[in-house]
Parts: sequence; structure tokens; C-alpha cells
Amino acid sequence: MIMDLQKRKELKKKLYTIIFKTDTEEGKRFDIILLNVILLSVILAAIESVVAFNARYALPFRICEWIITILFTIEYATRIYCSPNRKKYIFSVYGIIDLLSILPFFIGILYSSTHYLIVIRALRLLRIFRILKLTHFLKEGNHLVDSLRRSVKKIMIFTYFIMILVTILGALMYLVEGSVNPSFSNIPKSIYWAVVTITTVGYGDITPITFLGQTISVIVMLLGYSILAVPTGIISSELIKPLRKKNITCPNCGEN
Amino acid sequence: MIMDLQKRKELKKKLYTIIFKTDTEEGKRFDIILLNVILLSVILAAIESVVAFNARYALPFRICEWIITILFTIEYATRIYCSPNRKKYIFSVYGIIDLLSILPFFIGILYSSTHYLIVIRALRLLRIFRILKLTHFLKEGNHLVDSLRRSVKKIMIFTYFIMILVTILGALMYLVEGSVNPSFSNIPKSIYWAVVTITTVGYGDITPITFLGQTISVIVMLLGYSILAVPTGIISSELIKPLRKKNITCPNCGEN
Amino acid sequence: MIMDLQKRKELKKKLYTIIFKTDTEEGKRFDIILLNVILLSVILAAIESVVAFNARYALPFRICEWIITILFTIEYATRIYCSPNRKKYIFSVYGIIDLLSILPFFIGILYSSTHYLIVIRALRLLRIFRILKLTHFLKEGNHLVDSLRRSVKKIMIFTYFIMILVTILGALMYLVEGSVNPSFSNIPKSIYWAVVTITTVGYGDITPITFLGQTISVIVMLLGYSILAVPTGIISSELIKPLRKKNITCPNCGEN
Amino acid sequence: MIMDLQKRKELKKKLYTIIFKTDTEEGKRFDIILLNVILLSVILAAIESVVAFNARYALPFRICEWIITILFTIEYATRIYCSPNRKKYIFSVYGIIDLLSILPFFIGILYSSTHYLIVIRALRLLRIFRILKLTHFLKEGNHLVDSLRRSVKKIMIFTYFIMILVTILGALMYLVEGSVNPSFSNIPKSIYWAVVTITTVGYGDITPITFLGQTISVIVMLLGYSILAVPTGIISSELIKPLRKKNITCPNCGEN
Repeated sequence: MIMDLQKRKELKKKLYTIIFKTDTEEGKRFDIILLNVILLSVILAAIESVVAFNARYALPFRICEWIITILFTIEYATRIYCSPNRKKYIFSVYGIIDLLSILPFFIGILYSSTHYLIVIRALRLLRIFRILKLTHFLKEGNHLVDSLRRSVKKIMIFTYFIMILVTILGALMYLVEGSVNPSFSNIPKSIYWAVVTITTVGYGDITPITFLGQTISVIVMLLGYSILAVPTGIISSELIKPLRKKNITCPNCGEN
Repeated sequence: MIMDLQKRKELKKKLYTIIFKTDTEEGKRFDIILLNVILLSVILAAIESVVAFNARYALPFRICEWIITILFTIEYATRIYCSPNRKKYIFSVYGIIDLLSILPFFIGILYSSTHYLIVIRALRLLRIFRILKLTHFLKEGNHLVDSLRRSVKKIMIFTYFIMILVTILGALMYLVEGSVNPSFSNIPKSIYWAVVTITTVGYGDITPITFLGQTISVIVMLLGYSILAVPTGIISSELIKPLRKKNITCPNCGEN
Repeated sequence: MIMDLQKRKELKKKLYTIIFKTDTEEGKRFDIILLNVILLSVILAAIESVVAFNARYALPFRICEWIITILFTIEYATRIYCSPNRKKYIFSVYGIIDLLSILPFFIGILYSSTHYLIVIRALRLLRIFRILKLTHFLKEGNHLVDSLRRSVKKIMIFTYFIMILVTILGALMYLVEGSVNPSFSNIPKSIYWAVVTITTVGYGDITPITFLGQTISVIVMLLGYSILAVPTGIISSELIKPLRKKNITCPNCGEN
Repeated sequence: MIMDLQKRKELKKKLYTIIFKTDTEEGKRFDIILLNVILLSVILAAIESVVAFNARYALPFRICEWIITILFTIEYATRIYCSPNRKKYIFSVYGIIDLLSILPFFIGILYSSTHYLIVIRALRLLRIFRILKLTHFLKEGNHLVDSLRRSVKKIMIFTYFIMILVTILGALMYLVEGSVNPSFSNIPKSIYWAVVTITTVGYGDITPITFLGQTISVIVMLLGYSILAVPTGIISSELIKPLRKKNITCPNCGEN
């Protein structure tokens, strides 16, 4: 009995290193298999939305879906089983993502008797969010992620400033183009145009046609051009910061 | 009587800290309420420009407008009342913005008897500029704003250079495409195209169709691509500057 | 006689400081007038290309053109007159630009008797290149210009690399889309598409329609996205370089 | 006999310096000729794909093709001949590229008796990849290439993150726009839209039409705007790194 407990403990520990850690041979192999299953699952969900494909290969799609869900269910169960602190895992972001990637399927089975097809379709679509399982592989403590986190506040102030700017630009263009150009028939549309232009996306679904409108657009673009540089500058300077502090130790005398 | 004056003074001071300062609990609460009212007001003005919405909900829109304007009027009156230097506030940028955000409404009432609908519509639109009230929240002395201010002169020289470039490119494309492509029928349009292209906005409302025109476009794009880097470099180097000054300790005497 | 020579010399020197230098009160005033005349001239040339405008206001346009050309002729003559080294000025880039900004007009008069309208139109158009006269105001020794000059070689290597890339991408898309999509009917067009895409201009006049084509496009865009960063990095690092070298002198002991 | 061997050895050595090295007068001349022949060859292959051109000038095109292929064959043979380690050259990347740039032509001759026109066309197209021969001129040990190589891993993580993001955004837009907008009729298309938007390419072939869809688009664009800065920051910081290491002299002991 004690031996049995001992064995279980060992198994649990072994499973834990395989599933949660990546520094062993088996851990790496598990990660690669998981990565591929997730990608396959997402690609299947995406292809299923293509009507022509779905009508043709309905059965193989369903079989694949069954297999993948069973695999993810086993993975979820094992993760709970071997986790040292089960409650912490279940309510962690990763735990919730793992649950959400299997739940819709089971709800779908329950509701399949009903005729609420729209519910089933929505649930089926949720499977695409399984791609969030990939976040398991984004290691924390990453230099890149840290820099981005430190930049967030500055970028927020910047976005706030952009919001004021595009509202004013949108209202201006509505005044100038609104009466002759149906594309600028209301302010929300004009703000949409201002964002499309200032971010240099430039779909071309809404374009100015009057001379004054085009002149304002030219100014907006040259403005957006320079503004584009601000978040770049912010993130660049954050990425360079830690680099500077670390490097200043002298290799010969050990002082700064 | 003296007590009354004393009380008034205290009230004024308290109101001042609530409205103008942000470091007290009440000051913060006031700011959040103000922020929301401004955003609501701007969103209302934007939605009102959508014809279908406006026709349907004319009455609730008008009521909301009344409430918001009364709130802003009270805010403006209180700001004048509790300001230590009234004249300075009234003629400051913020004071003028605060006045302009209520004035159009009152002018609108005066003119409602007349049939100059266009005047009323223009005044109604002005309300969207209430978003400028949000600048109250942009604190001065900000590192970001400082860096941008220092970059302005360099960016100006750069914009000046871009202006020369797009004029020449526009004239060139007018020569090349003008006779076969109605989109390039005059130079201002061609300059508009040059700006749209060099800033990588790329609407696609004006595109070259001749082989030579497309070849020039390709060169313009690759050019614009590298040019895009200049303002980024300028702002990045400005953002990094103060960072550097802090970190440099003199190697000989140990002082900064 | 000697006095006269002395006077002439003084006049020449004075004219020289006004026209070529910008550090005196009069020199600045001259520059501002010149700047405005150039801009006016360019704007006129641009507007003249708009057919409707030109037909209506043919006479005032011609009069303005006469006045501006006379002014530029006087400026050119004075520049030659007061230049300490006339030959050097005449054959310098600025001298040639100054000549080219008046020459087309005089040739136009000579050829007006003939019926080669196309020649006259081309000459008229050349006036837009008067904007190059603005380069007078771009001071040399500028930090910005220096950084750009030092980056040119690296940017060239980079452009060279981009050229190889877009050729391969263009050929690939021609293979994939060529047979079903008339927009990709030949390789030069496909290369044009590749440049439009990789520089994130994205006109939308040529877009992939097959699934494989769209998949390749997605890869190209994500590629272009990262590549966009290279010239920025090059120029940024050049702009930061001199900054670093200058700052390292200690304010206390004067050593580095 | 020995003299002959000696001569051969000398010839081999001389040919080696001309073809593989660039530091002699003759080496440079050879490189320039090669560069021009490659470019000519690529331009010919590109123009040949234009149907109208090809029909007209079929014969001159074929003659040029013959000449260029013979030149490349001679170059390939010489490179093998004078290479100190023949096996190494033949199986190096450059060796394979050199072979591939002549092979299709000879296969084309063998198959010309058959009527598999599609095979010939595909082979003919392969000639455009001769542009890869240009990589001969990209010197290794380049600072720029080094920086890019060091950035690759970080850029990969970033691209991985972008992939997760666009999948989720695509699914979201499919949910929101799918039922009313045929452009968003399936998830792969929506993901394609998300990439086009977030990279600021903005073709405009797929654009949102509902209010909610446009609102999400606006958020995506402002997001993409800030994200655009990340690879720039990464590459910039890599480009600046070596620069810093050189400049830092230890303040205490004076060594690096």
C-alpha cells in the first residue's frame, strides 16, 4: 500500500515534469506533439468555416474533432491530476484556457438534440480560440515581454492622444466632404477614415474627392507618418535600457 | 460676516483642489466623472450625425444634450469662481476650450427662431470639439511631450524635404501617366498620389497603369520605405537622450 | 573713379551678404520673400495643370508667370554679379537650378511662333522643378543630413537585398496566380505587386484571389513587417552615434 | 611536363583570384560583368512573361537566352576547375545556385521534342531565380547581416505572437461580419484580412461594412500601429549593441 502510494507519487512527479516543464527530453517531445495538435485543431476549425469544404468532408472533420477533443480532455485531466496545487492550476489563466478548449464540444453534444443550430455553430467556432493554448509556450521573465509591459503606460497615453486627434480630424472631414461624398456621410465613418489614414493602413474604401478634402488628407498622412515614429521610439528606448545597465560592469576590475 | 468670508474662502479652496488638482480622493473622482461626461458628449455628437439614428431618437438626443450642456456650464462657472486668478484662467487655452464647449449650444437657442438651419448644424457639430476638454488630463512636464517638442524642428526640416520630393514626383508622374490615365489628369492630384504612396498609406484610388509609371512607383515605394525611418530615428534618439545623461558617471572624478 | 570702384565693391559685398548669407536682418528678409515667390510659382504651375482652372484664368496666370520669371531673372543676374567666384556659382548645382528655373520660359517665347504645343507644355511643366530652388535653404553640415549620408551605403545593400527578394516573390506569385488571375498575367506586374505589398503600401489594384496566393501574401506581409524595421534601425543607430561621442566629456575634470 | 603543371597551377590560382576574390582590379571587373549579365538575364526572363512582347520578339529572346546560358556554363565550369576544394564548392549553396541557373535550359532542350509545353514554361521561369546568383556579392561577416541573424530568434517569437493574434481577430471578425459581408465568408479569409490590416498593408479588397466591424477594425489598426514598433525596436537595439561595446572603456583600469 505504501509502495503503491510511493509509485503514484513518482508517476505524478514524472508526469509533472513531462507536461509542465520543458527542460527534459520527454518534456520537449510532449511540447512538440501538443503544439502540432493545437495547430491542427485550429487549422481544422478554420477550414470548417469554408462552406464548400465543410459540405464535402463533413464526416472526416467530425472524426478529427472527436479525436482532438479526447486528446485535449486527457491532457486537461492529467494536468489536474499531477499538478501540485490543483486549485491554483484550475483557476489560473492557462487552466481556464485548457477547460474552454474542450467545454464547447461537450456542450455541443448536449444541445445536439435541440435545433438551436446557431448555438452549435458558435460553440464550434470557439474551438479556434484553442490557439490560446499556445501561450503555454510563451515563457515568462522574457526580456521582450518585460520591455513591452514597461512601455504599455506610455503607449496608452499616446493612444489617448491619437483618439482625440482622429475625432477632430473625422469631424473636420465630415464638414468638408460630408455634403458631396456619401462615404463621409456621418462622423463615425469619418473617424474610421481618419484611423485608416493615420495608421497608414489605407484601405481605399473611403477616400476624399474634393480638392480641400485631399489637401487635408495629405496633411493627415504626413502627420501620421511622423506620429508612426512615437511608439517605435518608446519601445526601442525600453528595449535598449536594460542592455545599458548590464553592460557597464568592467571585465578587468569588476567595477562599474 | 467675517466667518462667512472665511467659509467662502475655504469653500473656494476646496473646490479648487477638487476641480484643478488630481492628487486628492475627491479630485480623482471629479476627473473620472468629467472624463465620462466628455466622452458621452462626444459619442452623442458623433452618433447624431448618423441620419437614421437622428430621425428616430431626436427627443432623447436633445434631452441628453440639454443635461450635458448644463453640467458643463456649471463646471465652467465653478472653475471661474474658484480660480485664484480668474482672468488668467478665462484667457488660457483650457478656459477658451471650456467656453467653446458650451457657447455653440446657447447661440443655437438664440438662432432657433430663424431658419438658418445650416448655422445650427454647424454649431451642433462644434460640440465634437469638446473632446479637446480631454487635454485637461494631459499633464505637462511629461518626458514624452518634452522629447516630441525637441524633435519638432528636425521633423519640420524633414517635412520640408518631403514636400520638395513629392512635388517633383507628382510632376514626373503627371508627365508619364497624365495623357493615358485620367487619375493623373493634373499635378495637384499627382502630388496627392505621391504623398499617398510615399507615406505607405496606399488608398488605391489613384494607381499607375503604364509600365513606366509602375516602375517609377516601385522606386518611390522603396524610397518611401527608407524615408519612413528618418522621423523614427529622430524621435528614438530624442527619447533615449535624457536616459543617457542620467547614467553617465565620470570615470575620473566620480561626479556627473 | 576709384571711389566708384570702391562703391561698387561695397554694393557687391552687401548684395552678397543679403543673397547668399542668412545671418543678417536683410538676408533673412530676402530669404523669406524668395521662399514665398518660389512656393507661389510652384503652386501656380501645379494649378495651371488643372484644365478647368487654366481655361478660365488664362490671362492672370500668364501675367503672374511673367512677373515671377522676371523676378527670378533679376535674382539670377544679381547672384552672378555679386558672386566672388562667378564660374564656380554658375556651374554649381544651385547655379544650374537657378538657370533652369528661368530658361524654359524664354525658350517658350522663342518657340511660341511654331505650333509645337507639346514642347511649350513640357517647358511650362518644367517650372514646377523651381521647387528645387528651395534646396538653397537646406544648410550643409546639418547633423541630420550627415547621418543620412553615412547610412546611404547600408541602405543601398539593403535595397539590393529587397530587389532580389521581390523578384523571387514576383516570379512565385506569377506561377501561383498567373493562370487564374489576370492581375498577375506577367512577371513585371507581379514584381510590382510584391513591392506594393512588402513596403506595406497596399494599393489593392492587384490582389491575390486563390487560397495559395493569399497564404503566400500573408507570409510576404509578415516578412515585410519585420524588414520595415531594418532601415529604421540603420538610421536610428547613425543618428545616435555622434550623440554618444560628444557626451562623454566630463564636465568636472574635462577628460573622457 | 613539370613546367606545364606549374603553369596550370598558376593559371588556376589566377582564375581563382579573379572569380572568387574581389580585391584585385581584374576581380572587380569580373564581378561587374557578372552582375550585369545576371541582371540582363533576369530582366529578359521577366519581360518574356509579357505575352505581347514574347510573341513579337521570340527569336531575339531565344538567341539572348543561348548566349547567357553559354556564359553561365563557362563560368560554372571555370569555378569548378579553379576551386581549391571542388567538392566543397559544388555542394555549397552558391554552387547549387550556379548549377540551377543553367540546368533548366539544358533540360528544356532535352524535353523540347515532347509536347509538355507546361514543363518548358516552368523551366523557363526558373531562370528568374538566377537573381540568387547575386548573393555572391553579399559579403559575409557583414555587421548588418550579423545584427539581423541575432535578431531572428526574437523576431520569430514575435511572429509567433502575431500568428495567435491574427487567428483570434480573424475568428472574431468572421463572427461579426460573416453573416452580412460576403468578404468575410470564412475564417481563412478573415485571417487574411487581419494580417492585411495589422501590417498596415491595407489592400481594401476585404473591408468591414457593419458598425461593429469597423469599430473592431479601428482597434486592430491602433494595435497594429504599436505592434509595428516591436521588430523595429529589436533590430535597432541589435544594431546599436556592437557600437556600444567598442566605445566603453573601463573608468577604473582603463582597459576594455
